[in-house]
Amino acid sequence: MPGVETMCQGDDPNCAAFAEHRRRFLGDLAPERRAFLKSGFVATGGAAALAAGGLSLVTPALAQTSAARGPRQATHQVLLANADTVHWGYFSKNLKPQVEIASGDFVTIETLTHQASDDAERMIQGDPGAESVYLWTKDKKGVARRGAGPEDAKLGPGGGLGVHICTGPVAIRGAEPGDVLEVRILDVAPRPCANPKFKGLAFGSNAAAWWGYHYKDLITGDRPREVVTIYEVDATGTRDWAKAVYSFRWPGVTDPNGIAHPTIDYPGLLVDHTKTERNFDVLKGIRVPIRPHFGTMGLAPAEADMVNSIPPSYTGGNIDNWRIGKGATMYYPVAVPGALFSVGDPHASQGDSELCGTAIECSLTGTFQFVLHKKQDLPGTALESLDFPMIETRDEWVLSGFSYPNYLKDLGPAAQDAIFQKSSIDLAMRDAFRKMRQFLMHAKGLTEDEAISLMSIAVDFGITQVVDGNWGVHAIVKKAIFAERTA
Amino acid sequence: MPGVETMCQGDDPNCAAFAEHRRRFLGDLAPERRAFLKSGFVATGGAAALAAGGLSLVTPALAQTSAARGPRQATHQVLLANADTVHWGYFSKNLKPQVEIASGDFVTIETLTHQASDDAERMIQGDPGAESVYLWTKDKKGVARRGAGPEDAKLGPGGGLGVHICTGPVAIRGAEPGDVLEVRILDVAPRPCANPKFKGLAFGSNAAAWWGYHYKDLITGDRPREVVTIYEVDATGTRDWAKAVYSFRWPGVTDPNGIAHPTIDYPGLLVDHTKTERNFDVLKGIRVPIRPHFGTMGLAPAEADMVNSIPPSYTGGNIDNWRIGKGATMYYPVAVPGALFSVGDPHASQGDSELCGTAIECSLTGTFQFVLHKKQDLPGTALESLDFPMIETRDEWVLSGFSYPNYLKDLGPAAQDAIFQKSSIDLAMRDAFRKMRQFLMHAKGLTEDEAISLMSIAVDFGITQVVDGNWGVHAIVKKAIFAERTA
Repeated sequence: MPGVETMCQGDDPNCAAFAEHRRRFLGDLAPERRAFLKSGFVATGGAAALAAGGLSLVTPALAQTSAARGPRQATHQVLLANADTVHWGYFSKNLKPQVEIASGDFVTIETLTHQASDDAERMIQGDPGAESVYLWTKDKKGVARRGAGPEDAKLGPGGGLGVHICTGPVAIRGAEPGDVLEVRILDVAPRPCANPKFKGLAFGSNAAAWWGYHYKDLITGDRPREVVTIYEVDATGTRDWAKAVYSFRWPGVTDPNGIAHPTIDYPGLLVDHTKTERNFDVLKGIRVPIRPHFGTMGLAPAEADMVNSIPPSYTGGNIDNWRIGKGATMYYPVAVPGALFSVGDPHASQGDSELCGTAIECSLTGTFQFVLHKKQDLPGTALESLDFPMIETRDEWVLSGFSYPNYLKDLGPAAQDAIFQKSSIDLAMRDAFRKMRQFLMHAKGLTEDEAISLMSIAVDFGITQVVDGNWGVHAIVKKAIFAERTA
Repeated sequence: MPGVETMCQGDDPNCAAFAEHRRRFLGDLAPERRAFLKSGFVATGGAAALAAGGLSLVTPALAQTSAARGPRQATHQVLLANADTVHWGYFSKNLKPQVEIASGDFVTIETLTHQASDDAERMIQGDPGAESVYLWTKDKKGVARRGAGPEDAKLGPGGGLGVHICTGPVAIRGAEPGDVLEVRILDVAPRPCANPKFKGLAFGSNAAAWWGYHYKDLITGDRPREVVTIYEVDATGTRDWAKAVYSFRWPGVTDPNGIAHPTIDYPGLLVDHTKTERNFDVLKGIRVPIRPHFGTMGLAPAEADMVNSIPPSYTGGNIDNWRIGKGATMYYPVAVPGALFSVGDPHASQGDSELCGTAIECSLTGTFQFVLHKKQDLPGTALESLDFPMIETRDEWVLSGFSYPNYLKDLGPAAQDAIFQKSSIDLAMRDAFRKMRQFLMHAKGLTEDEAISLMSIAVDFGITQVVDGNWGVHAIVKKAIFAERTA
């Protein structure tokens, strides 16, 4: 089974695994897209790639300092997703790194959706990585632990307390608590369906599940109910919208170990479609704009050994903001040695709120560059004392507020249970307000009065998600506002 | 004093008042802008203008039916803002209409910001309309009542229970409860400063006030405090951003009747700048993108005689969504005979949340077309049973959720006090969810399961405002999503 042993140093055309990866993910793409990706790969060599382009939180001086700390030749590695390279449903500072890199290095990382078992024919079959992860017979389970719960949990090891298949972690050499890790998302591509029946397509699943915002507030039909809709995404990159294929009522699943799951209470339950009624007359004529992004992406927190992957927190994780896609850059406070970056929960599209509990959950492959900013280089820069995950897109800075900014600390020893009882949008708004004020005062040098006036007239607050335990509100400020500012 | 008597029938070049208005508002504009406005005026004649262009909630059939009910020749009237044509701080079904029009007619309406007295030199002086409204001496008050409170309120007549200077109402002939009024915003232009010292400019005020979200959560300096920032807007239309001019701490104002106002507790208090310290070193180099729109715009509610203008509700009012600008169309349920449309609270720019309590409050003039859709024509259309204010922009439908969708009814006889104690973003989100579900099911013919899946992957929920008593969350869905849908 391929895993860490498949990695290559740099863009080595002699590395078989890398060549295979390129063949697989680039082979079917349109020429112009292929050309773009190639140019991305070419850019991997040398510190030039580290220079911050355009308006960034990283000043040229900081970029230079951080670059000088890294090696002179960046490497590009590939981390495939399979049973050996993923951790399912949790973050942990104790995980063994799958890849260890230096600041400035590039890693292409495959991610698998944890909803693929809703339609194995379209999202698992013929895909060695997905097959190895989802393997589950009476005698064998590709990835036994699913969630941060106990090994002997009633629903299965890990208890389903956390659901996202995360690839990684990636360790960054020399990263220490207090540093800031910059993660640039250079490319995001759908994972093509491996089943020849559906060549050129990719698929995703949207589960309107029991943890959804709507669940206790249904007005028609049998109540409550869980409904799954399968969406088709164009893997060739020519179509920028997805469409529904069919939907079905969650039929209940009895897993290979004999445990019944009347609701979607444990990840990776294989839906038996001889027991569902598939409705192919669903959302006819509806085109869903795609917004490929990673729902869950971040660093291992320091506060607990096993951390449920569902609630986002100060080191990122399941932020579920669709702006975390191609071209975006994340800044995370490093909480543990090596930083330990993991990524999963790939989405083809999501709206602000992720109302029904999930997005279009669709496997994606991302290419990332990692730049470490050392604590001692941060004083006087915008990244000084950064204690929350920050999103930078081409045109905007996006700050992530949560009901509890660091719930593991804020809610004490029972935090991982309590967080699911205590959240509200109102709390998340309060946090987003405070973080935006901090950003405008600290990173942009405004007084509190200036920051508050500007927030009222030029900052947009939106509802990121109301389904992840620790609810989210984001605050968006346009970079162009500051284009003329010298201070 | 000019008022209703200044109105013209149609685009009559012989009407002196109309010519004056055009001179005043178009004279200084760039040629291309003037050309656009002219073309807008040309479009005023005839029912052709009633045909719904592009994707609209109004089907061609409904447009034709509604047009057939109107007169064959539309008129264009002008409603200036002055002490005779505004009502300050309240909506009321008992107000005498300033203009009465037929469905299909156009009205250009001046609106004045209720924060102009923060800098009378820039926002009142030399402007006959503003001067007449703001007139307040020991013996005479241009508009005595400010707010929905009692005449003998301690702070002044109306008690400041409502603050917005609203121009109108405009009565639509034949409008009855159950109908839907479509209001198209054809143009929005800043009101140029009438003081020759500031030719070519317009100004607005942003008050970070005691009702702001930040007020009890300040971290620096004297706490609490109210701070006003004056912004400059380019009235010629060549610059699409505003900049701060200066800021000052609210100094407390004793009004001409001897009542002290240590906080901004009554509208129209003239700030004496010999008692302020103006800080001109404010928000240097910051460019605020302009988003001219009307914060308060809507119809008279049926539930009470005097309704505080601050909390928005089912007939619109103070929605404070910056998308209610040029090119947008509003749909309101008609609650009283004649509909009684009023507009005020003009904003040069606002962010989603209106965090500090106000936007850039800046006088604007709008040109509107009104189309009445009769209740009997609505069955089977998207407007059937519409019971909330709906925003349509070129590309999006935007639904307005409130903590209490019809707070006057929902909260009983004490509603107008209670609403200021009971709101939350969480409640507004619940309402926005339900309204979007209703819209997708009713107007777009989706099943509940389809609507819920689509809401999770393609609808964006944002925080409209957290400062207007009845807090707001909006839900945005792109029209293009439905472009291929036939059903």
